[in-house]
Amino acid sequence: MSKVAIVGGTGALGSAIAKRLANTGHDVAIGSRSAESAERAARELSDGVRFGTNARVAGEAEFVIVTVPYTAHAATLGEIKDVVGSAIVVDTTVPLVPPKVMRVQLPAAGSAAMEARQHLGSDARLVTAFHNVAAHRLAHDERVDCDVLVFSDDLAARGDVVTLIQSMGMRALAGGALVNSAAAEALTSLLIFMNKSYAADGAGIRFTGLTTAPPIP
Amino acid sequence: MSKVAIVGGTGALGSAIAKRLANTGHDVAIGSRSAESAERAARELSDGVRFGTNARVAGEAEFVIVTVPYTAHAATLGEIKDVVGSAIVVDTTVPLVPPKVMRVQLPAAGSAAMEARQHLGSDARLVTAFHNVAAHRLAHDERVDCDVLVFSDDLAARGDVVTLIQSMGMRALAGGALVNSAAAEALTSLLIFMNKSYAADGAGIRFTGLTTAPPIP
Repeated sequence: MSKVAIVGGTGALGSAIAKRLANTGHDVAIGSRSAESAERAARELSDGVRFGTNARVAGEAEFVIVTVPYTAHAATLGEIKDVVGSAIVVDTTVPLVPPKVMRVQLPAAGSAAMEARQHLGSDARLVTAFHNVAAHRLAHDERVDCDVLVFSDDLAARGDVVTLIQSMGMRALAGGALVNSAAAEALTSLLIFMNKSYAADGAGIRFTGLTTAPPIP
Repeated sequence: MSKVAIVGGTGALGSAIAKRLANTGHDVAIGSRSAESAERAARELSDGVRFGTNARVAGEAEFVIVTVPYTAHAATLGEIKDVVGSAIVVDTTVPLVPPKVMRVQLPAAGSAAMEARQHLGSDARLVTAFHNVAAHRLAHDERVDCDVLVFSDDLAARGDVVTLIQSMGMRALAGGALVNSAAAEALTSLLIFMNKSYAADGAGIRFTGLTTAPPIP
């Protein structure tokens, strides 16, 4: 059982992750800029889900999962920067630039992950994950036919996040160093393109040929 | 039956693609900087595979598949630039920067694809593909458990390349505009990382949830 804060937890991805974590038995807190919005979202999820401002919940967790649109990325990291301490920050942000969300448009730093590194500083235990999972798939209790890629330069933190995600009923795979997050961030635009061109309701990816990877739950 | 030139066809990926294409009944020519090297490689493949300098074979084909290491990318495109005309150029180049090939290191232009666009000019019918398939897997007649992503701004050319690859016994998927090639190029470093960390002998990817995609052969 881990203590997990979902920063920006009132959105579709945040709520879906919160629900899965709570159903798995983790101690979950929803954060938002306003405690009132967080409370509303928490009450719609299962009993026992706590709530508070982003800074409040982030300061009391072992894992801080950031689920905000790219436009709120820098500001949200600013809200939690001074309180996360040695907690593991799991950034899910994909640098989509509307309206052309089917086009890969990585930022000059190379990825949202490298921008997060700049915002949080070199001491933060930064991991990225969840870029490719469709929120509406995650929100249901059905099996998610998509691997979750996990990136970090902190191998212990990366391993802990792989374990956390596996506990939620999804296969998590280490994808290498934080800089490699660019690959998963770019893939999201491909998946959106494929949703359109191949009539998919939440396209996903699976890695093949791995002999010693964690099992597909 | 299509007329296909493999530029840089003496390497592992080029030879494997040439063999699959020849076995499928396509008219294949191996190109190299030297006609002698091309002849040697062609003789090791099946009967009827033609050979010549890169410029020679590229000037006589409907599809020109470029399979060279990133260090030879610019020079090779320079060799074929003036002869490809309206042929479809299929660039397979991944911008790996040894020795750190497990790290995503996309070039300033965003991808090898965007660099190829600069080298070949705006009139070239440029497509990219084959970034994620392990050459040694492709070289055998076994089923390749990996989707082949295909990118282009020229939708007709992209469709023709999808059809060509499907004829080789692999599932090909359109991944969107040429700029999206960055995603597949970045993925290659992840697959190399996974080969090491998950004891894989040629990790691959499959896309899931696509209802109207071409069948997996």
